[in-house]
Amino acid sequence: MELPQLLAVARGERPADLLLRNGRLVNVLSGEVYPAEIAIAGGTIAGLGAGYDAREEIDLGGRFVAPGLIDAHVHIESSMVPPAEFARAVVPRGVTTAVTDPHEIANVLGLAGIRFMLEQSEGAPLDVLVNAPSCVPATHLETSGAGLTADDLATLLGHPRVLGLAEVMNYPGVIAGDEEVLAKLRAFRGRPIDGHCPGLSGQRLQAYAAAGIGNDHECTTAAEALEKLRAGLTIFVREATNARNLRALLPLVSPLTERRLCLCTDDRHPADLLMEGSVDHLIRAAIAGGVDPVVAIRMATLNPAEHYGLRDRGAIIPGRRADLMVFRDLAAPRAEMVFRGGKLVAQYGRLLETDGLSSLVPALPPTVHIDPQRLDFSIRAAGSSVRVIGAIPDQLVTESLVMDASLQDGRAMADPGRDLLKMAVVERHRGTGRMGLGFVRGVGLKRGAIAGTVAHDHHNLVVIGADDASMRTAALAVAKAGGGLAAAEGENVLALLPLPLAGLMSDRPIEEVRDDMRVLLEAAHSLGTALHDPFMAMSFLALEVIPALKLTDLGLVDVERFEIVPLFL
Amino acid sequence: MELPQLLAVARGERPADLLLRNGRLVNVLSGEVYPAEIAIAGGTIAGLGAGYDAREEIDLGGRFVAPGLIDAHVHIESSMVPPAEFARAVVPRGVTTAVTDPHEIANVLGLAGIRFMLEQSEGAPLDVLVNAPSCVPATHLETSGAGLTADDLATLLGHPRVLGLAEVMNYPGVIAGDEEVLAKLRAFRGRPIDGHCPGLSGQRLQAYAAAGIGNDHECTTAAEALEKLRAGLTIFVREATNARNLRALLPLVSPLTERRLCLCTDDRHPADLLMEGSVDHLIRAAIAGGVDPVVAIRMATLNPAEHYGLRDRGAIIPGRRADLMVFRDLAAPRAEMVFRGGKLVAQYGRLLETDGLSSLVPALPPTVHIDPQRLDFSIRAAGSSVRVIGAIPDQLVTESLVMDASLQDGRAMADPGRDLLKMAVVERHRGTGRMGLGFVRGVGLKRGAIAGTVAHDHHNLVVIGADDASMRTAALAVAKAGGGLAAAEGENVLALLPLPLAGLMSDRPIEEVRDDMRVLLEAAHSLGTALHDPFMAMSFLALEVIPALKLTDLGLVDVERFEIVPLFL
Repeated sequence: MELPQLLAVARGERPADLLLRNGRLVNVLSGEVYPAEIAIAGGTIAGLGAGYDAREEIDLGGRFVAPGLIDAHVHIESSMVPPAEFARAVVPRGVTTAVTDPHEIANVLGLAGIRFMLEQSEGAPLDVLVNAPSCVPATHLETSGAGLTADDLATLLGHPRVLGLAEVMNYPGVIAGDEEVLAKLRAFRGRPIDGHCPGLSGQRLQAYAAAGIGNDHECTTAAEALEKLRAGLTIFVREATNARNLRALLPLVSPLTERRLCLCTDDRHPADLLMEGSVDHLIRAAIAGGVDPVVAIRMATLNPAEHYGLRDRGAIIPGRRADLMVFRDLAAPRAEMVFRGGKLVAQYGRLLETDGLSSLVPALPPTVHIDPQRLDFSIRAAGSSVRVIGAIPDQLVTESLVMDASLQDGRAMADPGRDLLKMAVVERHRGTGRMGLGFVRGVGLKRGAIAGTVAHDHHNLVVIGADDASMRTAALAVAKAGGGLAAAEGENVLALLPLPLAGLMSDRPIEEVRDDMRVLLEAAHSLGTALHDPFMAMSFLALEVIPALKLTDLGLVDVERFEIVPLFL
Repeated sequence: MELPQLLAVARGERPADLLLRNGRLVNVLSGEVYPAEIAIAGGTIAGLGAGYDAREEIDLGGRFVAPGLIDAHVHIESSMVPPAEFARAVVPRGVTTAVTDPHEIANVLGLAGIRFMLEQSEGAPLDVLVNAPSCVPATHLETSGAGLTADDLATLLGHPRVLGLAEVMNYPGVIAGDEEVLAKLRAFRGRPIDGHCPGLSGQRLQAYAAAGIGNDHECTTAAEALEKLRAGLTIFVREATNARNLRALLPLVSPLTERRLCLCTDDRHPADLLMEGSVDHLIRAAIAGGVDPVVAIRMATLNPAEHYGLRDRGAIIPGRRADLMVFRDLAAPRAEMVFRGGKLVAQYGRLLETDGLSSLVPALPPTVHIDPQRLDFSIRAAGSSVRVIGAIPDQLVTESLVMDASLQDGRAMADPGRDLLKMAVVERHRGTGRMGLGFVRGVGLKRGAIAGTVAHDHHNLVVIGADDASMRTAALAVAKAGGGLAAAEGENVLALLPLPLAGLMSDRPIEEVRDDMRVLLEAAHSLGTALHDPFMAMSFLALEVIPALKLTDLGLVDVERFEIVPLFL
């Protein structure tokens, strides 16, 4: 709508398109909640207060109206579905904007992957704003599907939905003034630059902040968050599937700090998204933890809008987009209606228009290039003791163990009796056949194997098993599906979740993905593991940026020395 | 300083240029005050905390350090000195950034006047950021020295110190969707757009906000401010020489509202600037009124920085400009040291380097074009009663009175016995000789006359007197000085403050301007007026945007009907 028409509506001289009556407005600017009518025209809020006429009216029955929620930082790939389907899950929750870092798909498909996420979200009832992945590949000790230079990333700057630079995980590179990293910062000068610096403190934190990094979502204690806040980083309070920091950070929330705090989900699996929700869950958890409801709502509306310079949303005031969340209980906001651009897009947990969503058949090239002939997991013995990755339940860090090898016919074997399982990371992007082999303890399979192509950040094919045959079956099942997760025993595939989109995402509804995942976990548990989610655990055993011992396609990585080390001592 | 060098300092591997030791940091982000050392390199804050080395150290002796202050809205012309001299007055107060609207000089000299303000502030130890004057001329019922279209204003957009569009005083034009006004809004789309809407309320306020106006500094009650805050306007709390709103607005300040509140001085005369101060005075007044000191400081640092998108200042954190204010008393901050870009620029109320400031001889064309031959203040009688402007002490509004004319030889005369004085507004920009003539009551001169070229917004030459001869003397004195303020009696000039820069500003030190002004006021008071500042009162009697009856060079203006009305009934 052109401004003169909007002004006529605001003046009350022209009927609005829609009038929301009988609602209680959560005004995140004045910090108040009070009854007010909301007149909407052309997708924009035209005016607040009584006395407006409209072509259509909706009686909110005394419900509350807050701005549409903004997830300040989310990797959509972790929902295992593409953006449009992700939208179907989160929009009914009240989320109307997601700031996303397509880091996972970028590691598989590079710029093409990022463009896929942009295109797939084009018609979605969710504003998907993209930060350009800054660390592809994450390190030189892995083979990812792509590498993105500052020049590559700069090609994204012209896109209207590209905001800034995504979490600069290479914080040592920033601090050291690494030329390659600085080139990326320069390319995004004046734009938001996201941070990621778990545990960073002291002068190194000062340097990271001095480089212009704007936020951090890796704080695990209030003390850590306070030091970062003091240094100028906006704190994104995260409650992900595998990293739940909200409760620990609540002590930081005060009237004087709250404006520099935002909520984000980072990584949420289908089951959590569908059961708990998105940032709406974080709002409820914050309120339950004692945070004032208006403050909690600010942390997912006004604060991220201001942090990212999104002047067209984040508050219900004239001139801003009519992105709205309607709910009944201020103590536990749960969306009953969601408006996006003045249009009712979801009601009672369901998207109203799913046309154009379910029919999406995304076109992506195959990304799992594995030659079955070369899939040999046997390990030739070169000593009597081996380094073993020591998995710790619910933690991303591992121990670096040394155990006696189980030798048989000159080969080192898995030995489930001692919880010594074999692990392989198979390069899957370029079909090199390159494979890292090693051993892991703590996963607890008694027999069989699990495999998957979701493995942060390189997303190669990872397999863990009690015997080579099961490992081969699981790996081939995943490869054949074009990516995914599988559990196998001997020659039998027990369960398979195909993720044909970059080996990361399904092309089916998120509910089906959740159900498949449930079956898959049951299968894995039937093989003897006691880990809550052995697939997630497995994916982090190949993440060589977190200590102590990890496995990539290039071999065993001693993370502290940051170099490849031999399997045998 | 390049980023790699800054990072080396932040890491502690390279000495800082300057280390501020033994200070207590006012951290406006975390809302805390705590001891911290501040390491500065290349004008930028490199790091906070202990352990830094530096080439130079300053011991702050336990004093507090806050970010350099930001005056969110000021007309520098009201200080009666140009920007560099204004800086000399406010920088020692801790003000390191002023967002200015060169509206007054623009009404005299158009774009050339704006460029003069930009150039004159180029080397000043104050960051003068300019918003482009949106209402030149203010109305069609006056003759100003220039008219600025949207296209004219757009030529300023490329200047690095031009922020956005200055106060859109023509709020009826915005609300009505006036094409000329909307063109200006369009030209500054995405930039800050300042507002000015005294008393605006209801649906008209909603329309004004919907147009994208970002703030208002005209609130006189907390209720008015709350309604505007709810509608999305950031509230600039003003404490000007002639409009003091701070006390009335303090009830609005709360932990939930403070982030949308800023402090501004708008218009401050030399005496107030030198005696009370700039925004530092407002901070002290706010604290004295019960506002938390950190919140009060935020309102003149972080809040205006965020409002205007100034990401390089407003907080003391790594990577931001080392603009700092050092003071001893948190309950009444008064700058003892001021750093700008890491350099100590003022100490104990004095600028340290005045080189290049006093030697400035600004080149501006003459702007007072008055032909003495045509300066005839006689009024031919055309009836027996006249409309009379009823001045009200300390108010900008006037009454519209009707009084019997004092007729003599077919002419209407001043009659000081009845407090009926003659007033003239002489067009001075183009030498047209055009003059508006009328009568005023409430100024109280018993004899003589006062004259001046400061008259919002057109700044024509205004004269008020008890007899035509005194009026002529005063007017000619001002004209001969190239602009200024004068008091005269008969043929004697009693006092004169020359303002040769556009008829608005002096080329002498602000202290001398203050002293001249004091002499001038004494002279005016000796002529019988009891008004605190009859020159300021006079300047608003010619401001035809504020009710009820005003005089411009085009004649008497009935403000409510917004048209010229005859003097005689």
